[in-house]
Amino acid sequence: MISFIKKLEAAWRQNNSLVCVGLDPDVNKLPACLAGSAKPIFEFNKAIIDATHDLVCCYKPQAAYYAAAEADDQLKMTIAYIREKYPEIPVILDVKRGDIGSTAEMYAKEAFERYNADALTVNPYMGSDNLKPFLDHAERGVIILCRTSNPSSCELQELICDGKTIYEHVALLTRDKWNYNGNAALVIGATFPGELKKIREICPDIPFLVPGVGAQGGDVRQVVENGINAAGVGLMINSSRGIIYADNSAAFAAGARKAAAELRDLINQFR
Amino acid sequence: MISFIKKLEAAWRQNNSLVCVGLDPDVNKLPACLAGSAKPIFEFNKAIIDATHDLVCCYKPQAAYYAAAEADDQLKMTIAYIREKYPEIPVILDVKRGDIGSTAEMYAKEAFERYNADALTVNPYMGSDNLKPFLDHAERGVIILCRTSNPSSCELQELICDGKTIYEHVALLTRDKWNYNGNAALVIGATFPGELKKIREICPDIPFLVPGVGAQGGDVRQVVENGINAAGVGLMINSSRGIIYADNSAAFAAGARKAAAELRDLINQFR
Repeated sequence: MISFIKKLEAAWRQNNSLVCVGLDPDVNKLPACLAGSAKPIFEFNKAIIDATHDLVCCYKPQAAYYAAAEADDQLKMTIAYIREKYPEIPVILDVKRGDIGSTAEMYAKEAFERYNADALTVNPYMGSDNLKPFLDHAERGVIILCRTSNPSSCELQELICDGKTIYEHVALLTRDKWNYNGNAALVIGATFPGELKKIREICPDIPFLVPGVGAQGGDVRQVVENGINAAGVGLMINSSRGIIYADNSAAFAAGARKAAAELRDLINQFR
Repeated sequence: MISFIKKLEAAWRQNNSLVCVGLDPDVNKLPACLAGSAKPIFEFNKAIIDATHDLVCCYKPQAAYYAAAEADDQLKMTIAYIREKYPEIPVILDVKRGDIGSTAEMYAKEAFERYNADALTVNPYMGSDNLKPFLDHAERGVIILCRTSNPSSCELQELICDGKTIYEHVALLTRDKWNYNGNAALVIGATFPGELKKIREICPDIPFLVPGVGAQGGDVRQVVENGINAAGVGLMINSSRGIIYADNSAAFAAGARKAAAELRDLINQFR
């Protein structure tokens, strides 16, 4: 099995892209042309994947959308489809899980066996023993929340202890303790580009998943200039709504392709 | 609809119990007598619920176990069963969710509509806007991770900022900002009884969900003496493995009843 990190590195180069497409299909926002489908979410995702696979470095389905719609089967079909048809593109299951060790084992099973994702997102609040059951899967990526894109992320993440913010502590723990299999990555919001720079200095080689461009307002130029690594890669810049809902007509897949290409090209201008 | 907090208060009194039974059924540990069942997890839970409903103040299914086993339907059946047969006992869905607002809305839908739980557990790392979609449901309980029971919870939760640990900041935010509908509660591990006392002083009236007695080693006497509120209640002391796997024979339900009664009586000795 090719590891998440190796797949990601290959996809960055092959597609010359740092774009991550967030597959967050709200059943109430799907194009009308899918109304008759028995598996509308899967059909929607499939069309978007077929239209964008050569423009992206990864896909990121957000589990909450599938869970709310009781569409667990369509999440599974989506990941299986990518793995079969585009095995070169890694899939991140965005679940932000975190629990005591014995429970985290079950969540690892959910993400890596049930859904067979290449990587998942996790929450660091409970510390090492909650991350270990994920990190022990050396071939899977474990993307740890560090500085999240939402406005109130400051409430805890910006508290300062021993001269460092909590998110800097998370970056240091990731670099020094949690990356023992070389499979850790960090979530850092595009809405805080100055902090991207600070964390890139702490972790020169760790990949960053960067949500928050598009609907949340993050600036692409600043994200790229502050977040890129020495090799000119290192970022998975996520756009969900800006790509998947770019066009709500029957031509939605072409609209998504256009939006993904535009984001890729905008990012590449600043690399 | 009766609110989670009202149901919990009534159950504390009616059953004279602070026991929360954790419904964390590992498919590999179920009694052999259930091997032929089409819904073994549900049958297991049902027998345990029937045997313990008059001894507990709440039930807490841990979502990870169901997710790993692709048993979402049996989780739903379990909660529906409690709601129908024992509507006086609240159900906490232990999911430790946390995400940006638009995604948290979907998780609220998962917990409160799909599964119809009375309450859920959430992770505070992302701050207010990730909690609001849950807290806005005034009739549902929102149980926020504060000081978790696992050994490495110290890594972030004990960092000190402005003279207070991060978990104390979470307790203060809960008391002063997040409890605007009176439906917040906190998770505090039984393995840190001194901290239970400190947090009870900060939050005299907020209910605490206390995991970590039994398999994790927390001391019941210290939990009760340090965590109880002025009214002699205020705690949901969880035991999962210690109750549901007390007896692995065909008499597992009677074994669970015995273990639940013993825990209730042990707790009540110290109230």
